[in-house]
Amino acid sequence: MAHISFSRRLRRTPFTAGVEAAGVKAFTVYNRMLLPTVFESPEADYRHLKQHVQVWDVSCERQVELRGPDAGRLMQMLTPRDLRGKLPGQCFYVPIVDETGGMLNDPVAVKLSEDQYWISIADSDLLLWVKGIANGYRLDVLVDEPDVSPLAVQGPKADELLSRVFGDRVRDIRFFKFDMFEFGGRDLAIARSGYSKQGGFEIYVDGTEIGMPLWNRLFEAGADLNVRAGCPNLIERIESGLLSYGNDMTDDNTPHECGLGRFCDTQTAIGCIGRDALLRVAKEGPVQQIRPLAIGGDPVGPCDRPWSLVAGGNRVGQVTSAAWSPDFKTNVSIGMVRITHWDPGTELTVETPYGPRTAVVQDGFWN
Amino acid sequence: MAHISFSRRLRRTPFTAGVEAAGVKAFTVYNRMLLPTVFESPEADYRHLKQHVQVWDVSCERQVELRGPDAGRLMQMLTPRDLRGKLPGQCFYVPIVDETGGMLNDPVAVKLSEDQYWISIADSDLLLWVKGIANGYRLDVLVDEPDVSPLAVQGPKADELLSRVFGDRVRDIRFFKFDMFEFGGRDLAIARSGYSKQGGFEIYVDGTEIGMPLWNRLFEAGADLNVRAGCPNLIERIESGLLSYGNDMTDDNTPHECGLGRFCDTQTAIGCIGRDALLRVAKEGPVQQIRPLAIGGDPVGPCDRPWSLVAGGNRVGQVTSAAWSPDFKTNVSIGMVRITHWDPGTELTVETPYGPRTAVVQDGFWN
Repeated sequence: MAHISFSRRLRRTPFTAGVEAAGVKAFTVYNRMLLPTVFESPEADYRHLKQHVQVWDVSCERQVELRGPDAGRLMQMLTPRDLRGKLPGQCFYVPIVDETGGMLNDPVAVKLSEDQYWISIADSDLLLWVKGIANGYRLDVLVDEPDVSPLAVQGPKADELLSRVFGDRVRDIRFFKFDMFEFGGRDLAIARSGYSKQGGFEIYVDGTEIGMPLWNRLFEAGADLNVRAGCPNLIERIESGLLSYGNDMTDDNTPHECGLGRFCDTQTAIGCIGRDALLRVAKEGPVQQIRPLAIGGDPVGPCDRPWSLVAGGNRVGQVTSAAWSPDFKTNVSIGMVRITHWDPGTELTVETPYGPRTAVVQDGFWN
Repeated sequence: MAHISFSRRLRRTPFTAGVEAAGVKAFTVYNRMLLPTVFESPEADYRHLKQHVQVWDVSCERQVELRGPDAGRLMQMLTPRDLRGKLPGQCFYVPIVDETGGMLNDPVAVKLSEDQYWISIADSDLLLWVKGIANGYRLDVLVDEPDVSPLAVQGPKADELLSRVFGDRVRDIRFFKFDMFEFGGRDLAIARSGYSKQGGFEIYVDGTEIGMPLWNRLFEAGADLNVRAGCPNLIERIESGLLSYGNDMTDDNTPHECGLGRFCDTQTAIGCIGRDALLRVAKEGPVQQIRPLAIGGDPVGPCDRPWSLVAGGNRVGQVTSAAWSPDFKTNVSIGMVRITHWDPGTELTVETPYGPRTAVVQDGFWN
């Protein structure tokens, strides 16, 4: 077990002091920022998330802000999803692709107004791609990283907790919509979204200085709800089929390989930089795709490098996320599998550091 | 002391197996890749580096490859350094700036031929900026990350060690030049460079499969030289004034603020995207600049967030890297100081987590 060496380069967040006081045991680094990974244990954190409510420091979901008359045009250049008809107040999951159709990020876009968007990014410096495109195409748009740090509130008691702090109007926010709420003299966007399937919200905390006051207010308001500091949970996110950019997909993959074809309107997404490259794969389909796989035997994971999937002596894919699921009593995993072997029920061999195991393609994720 | 959670997203390198076998105690994450930070202890690693020879896994210095007829034009667009007259076989430190003159990276460029460059990057996804610019300006150039992982050999016995493996011709490589050498059937560029002032080389290991064979060959050849696995050493790099992008500077800073004005030829670097923004600061000078500072009292550091520099109750700068120097018997540090307080000998107060300390501006770095 190795330690992490802290430095300014691994940025602290507005909530890191709270995370440390809550007894964080491990971090990962995400967008050059600290992201907690374990408080009590992955299994205990998982159980608590499914039963109660947690506050997650997901500041590492940095925002790329587009502001100006060309903001909408630029947003459409970035993604094969057709954004016509999207309204202010909506969030939308947008695969971001380069000119070859390779995934550069899989963020959630937040439409604040016709000329202002936030792109809430996964783990790549998407800011630099967006700035480069805006500069090269001479667009009238400002592109920057604002001082906005998402704080997620996740779990079955999330509605109750947030309504105590922001009022019952939070209960009316629909999935992937947001509304504005006041805290500490600031207007904050709160969306019904988050990186779990246990329900909850993401608060776009606008201004570092209100970070710890909000953190503390949530813990005061939720004491009797058994609120705890938490973090995206590896087990729960695999059960739920929530992909992780950099783990389950990279810029080698198209959105269609990632099973994100439903978020692509390649025919009509006029202006998207990767559109031409994706037209063929959008029509004919990919030759490999993300699949859930159940891995047999004792608990395995985490997956710190791709584990080969093998059939008949040939490599037919790889597993990139894996964990033992206490609820489903199997190792849940996410892999990229070739078309010849991706049908549900197909039995493959996965080469883990713990030796070869059987891996059976599932017909759906677990949650 | 927190642990690091491993995942595929924090990429292993061709040498990680060797690093682990050598007993690495801590990592940082750099360009989404594992970078070792401690083997025995920072002080013991430092002492050994200054006396013997170390092999460093600096694969995290990823390469951005520019290839094609517009490679040279694109390279000049990225930097205010005038690249006319640079020849194949040369390496050059190049501040990379955006259209506002803000630093996006401070890499070493390796000119392989007139139409092929590698940019050996510091910690930001420069690949995305370069790809965005190449796309937006419709340049005839391929931009990609090749399977090239630098392995540094640093310390006073580096010439002896490398000559045993590659022959005496390595001794003839001049500072910031490179030549080609054969290993495992591959031609490898070896440059006299590296992130210490103890002398040595960087081997651009082209092909993951030769990584561990080369690692092992170096350790076999250097057993009697007391060769060890090492890593960039915080103490030594501060003593030597080697800046760290993300720690000592960010995209908020111009090259001139970073003391890199000598690498900028802003008048003649025609085509550089940030040239217009830098013309004024190049002429008149910056209002704040990097300075070495000696911090009094007991050992402090590391610096996991900026420490304010204060004079007369006003904030006049910040310290961003600090460590106790066993050789110089003081805390060595790097800070950004305002023009009013940057003269050598100026005594400031630095607000550390260990309380306020005196910080005296030095007239030069220590090594």
